Amino acid sequence: MPDARVLDAALWPASAARTDSGEIAVSGIPVSQLVEQFGSPLFVYDEQDVRTRARRYVKAFNTVEVPTQVFYAGKAFLCTSIAKWLTEEGLSIDVCTAGELETALRGGVDPARILFHGNNKSNAELERAVEVGVGRVVVDSLVEIQRLNQIAAVRGVTQQVLVRVTVGVEAHTHEFIATAHEDQKFGLSVASGAALVGVEAVLGADALSLLGLHSHIGSQIFDAAGFEVAAHRVIDLAAQIRDEFDFTVSELNLGGGMGIAYVAGDDPLDVDQMAQAIHRILIEQCARVHFPVPHLAVEPGRAIVGATALTVYEVGTVKPVELDGGVTRRYIAVDGGMSDNIRPALYDAEYTVTLASRDTDAVGVLSRVVGKHCESGDILVKDATLPADIAPGDLLAIAATGAYCRAMASNYNHMPRPAVVGVNEGKASIMLRRETLDDLLVLDPGATL
Amino acid sequence: MPDARVLDAALWPASAARTDSGEIAVSGIPVSQLVEQFGSPLFVYDEQDVRTRARRYVKAFNTVEVPTQVFYAGKAFLCTSIAKWLTEEGLSIDVCTAGELETALRGGVDPARILFHGNNKSNAELERAVEVGVGRVVVDSLVEIQRLNQIAAVRGVTQQVLVRVTVGVEAHTHEFIATAHEDQKFGLSVASGAALVGVEAVLGADALSLLGLHSHIGSQIFDAAGFEVAAHRVIDLAAQIRDEFDFTVSELNLGGGMGIAYVAGDDPLDVDQMAQAIHRILIEQCARVHFPVPHLAVEPGRAIVGATALTVYEVGTVKPVELDGGVTRRYIAVDGGMSDNIRPALYDAEYTVTLASRDTDAVGVLSRVVGKHCESGDILVKDATLPADIAPGDLLAIAATGAYCRAMASNYNHMPRPAVVGVNEGKASIMLRRETLDDLLVLDPGATL
Repeated sequence: MPDARVLDAALWPASAARTDSGEIAVSGIPVSQLVEQFGSPLFVYDEQDVRTRARRYVKAFNTVEVPTQVFYAGKAFLCTSIAKWLTEEGLSIDVCTAGELETALRGGVDPARILFHGNNKSNAELERAVEVGVGRVVVDSLVEIQRLNQIAAVRGVTQQVLVRVTVGVEAHTHEFIATAHEDQKFGLSVASGAALVGVEAVLGADALSLLGLHSHIGSQIFDAAGFEVAAHRVIDLAAQIRDEFDFTVSELNLGGGMGIAYVAGDDPLDVDQMAQAIHRILIEQCARVHFPVPHLAVEPGRAIVGATALTVYEVGTVKPVELDGGVTRRYIAVDGGMSDNIRPALYDAEYTVTLASRDTDAVGVLSRVVGKHCESGDILVKDATLPADIAPGDLLAIAATGAYCRAMASNYNHMPRPAVVGVNEGKASIMLRRETLDDLLVLDPGATL
Repeated sequence: MPDARVLDAALWPASAARTDSGEIAVSGIPVSQLVEQFGSPLFVYDEQDVRTRARRYVKAFNTVEVPTQVFYAGKAFLCTSIAKWLTEEGLSIDVCTAGELETALRGGVDPARILFHGNNKSNAELERAVEVGVGRVVVDSLVEIQRLNQIAAVRGVTQQVLVRVTVGVEAHTHEFIATAHEDQKFGLSVASGAALVGVEAVLGADALSLLGLHSHIGSQIFDAAGFEVAAHRVIDLAAQIRDEFDFTVSELNLGGGMGIAYVAGDDPLDVDQMAQAIHRILIEQCARVHFPVPHLAVEPGRAIVGATALTVYEVGTVKPVELDGGVTRRYIAVDGGMSDNIRPALYDAEYTVTLASRDTDAVGVLSRVVGKHCESGDILVKDATLPADIAPGDLLAIAATGAYCRAMASNYNHMPRPAVVGVNEGKASIMLRRETLDDLLVLDPGATL
């Protein structure tokens, strides 16, 4: 596990590079300069990289043979600038709460290009979605079909919907599990017949228009094998709907979950390979039951933004800790931690870290990068080989923190959440400003001095 | 696992009780009335219960034989009202960041009663701590001893410190592991000699005054066995300090980690038993090496506030999900989830849940209580037996959410964090107001409409 002095293009933002002094710069701006201007810790997004990956997704997936709409999964990380960049590059946006919807709207997203998800949308959320005219609501339960129909009827509109179905496939990296039934909160089961009941309910609902079916099979998926089983089952359902209700669904949303590399050796399919594989699967599965190939939709989140950002931290303490057996582990503590990246603690997620602010000839030493929270599980990178001369004041960069890091950030230990900046053509601008102590205390009526 | 229709006193706030209609009331206020006034989800703290537990802790631990200072571990949950209540009841406060310090100060806590912790305090944090005159800084590394000494010297003051030492004990529920060395980020190792080096550095630092030693051995600790080994080792160190440096430490802080019950059957020692056990251990260990019994300090967090709060949620959807083998699991989705209680996802933590808003004669059904986040791991209670007639609009209550729930809350999926109310003598008041969508967007410069 060598220190990533050479920045692996699979892991780091496209414009990240070492300067002559060995420092990392993104879009030409050295990280030390960014930290001087915006403070530390700092999330740095490479705007051109976000845009490039978005364009590449649309280009790979949206073909003449299989017209495809690419929805960005806002849960990965959403703010108005991300919404703006992605819609400018041809993506639509998938949201799952009133908060994500509001963010997308303020980012100027055309409501017709918004899809609204969720296993338990509130009435207020459904009303707001219908009011602003979101293009698609993915209905998740029978009770929601009734609610949404009523809400749309009251407003005298017809709401386009997809029915979320569970197909019994659970995919992760190169593996997938296929069962008949799926033990999770989302959707209506194909195997149990609940999905067909849901479809019938939508078809019978005056103020709803059935566009198609929605399936989602996992996260950090590295190949298309799981999608094959999922598509098989959902196309079977589409054929059954055609046969029983004389209705042909025109859209199939296969969800997201496309994976990215976090550490050297992670080998997800690239977007062209994934798109070709999923197209082939869709075409074959439709041919199998003589079903017209529907419009496809996919929902990448991590695959769009995950690798386009890094987090810069400042080292505060470096401490050699003797372990039983005479081994020494070096603990390097930085000025953030589990409040800005819960994924190592929550999912045992691995990350790649490197000394970012300078060059060194020092040998690599077994290190653990930890945060400053009052919790021993506050670990960012469990095992890293980092230069022996790392010292307080050095900056470290952790790669691929663009998805599910700032989005899941907390104020644990009353830590203000880091700023998020976007860099583009040598310029940096605030996407989300850093929280202040006053921000943290604004909810506390007793905190006014 | 029956539904907790009878509220187990070990799990629920002291004043929580069923009304004649079967609804839960806290301090006499029905939860439906609280939700009507303050919205859902809602954290409800029982102020008298917080105060009672605080008083009980002081009474049990602070005796003539072993004078003890009880520090509340602010990381469990801190806002100005908690700080105020607890200091009024005789507790001191332990903080670990500038944010927690600021909250305690705005809560009116005398700085002399504040202890500042942390493996990687920033210079700004150390400066602020010295500036306001916190009573104790727990120094965690050699570099920090230098930093703090410089900061205190510049201000011309003497800062009282404890040295955080690791004794190789890791305790949890009824188990503990004892090794020579401890593989974690906090403190200085007794076994390696680092602790003694740290003590020597403090003794040689002109602007620091060594008060004593600090050790912390785990979390959710149900008995005192781990404290016995820890005290043995730390008292050995104290004796060694006396012998080598002719200096007698006057304070021993054994940290926190005292556990509480989350589900029926959890059986932590009560505070009297724990205090008696720790006192006996301390006296015996001191006698063993003829060391004068030092002042004791302990740092309960969860043990003070954990059981004094419950979370009220509104049910949005109820969905039977067929599992392989013909079993059905009922998914009950509520209007919060992993953003307001990450502990089930993060630590596999178990909780007790009950129908809170009404009585019922319905039979119990195997249920899973899930949140509304766009993530299948968004589970609050994995296995619960809840009445078969639970329906949308019902309120559920989850017990013992007073510690590490609101404190670790996030805005994942752009969910506003719930309000926190305190109830006392039939009156409810806001401790932390509910976030609004505008609060969520205040950091985003592009969100201004």
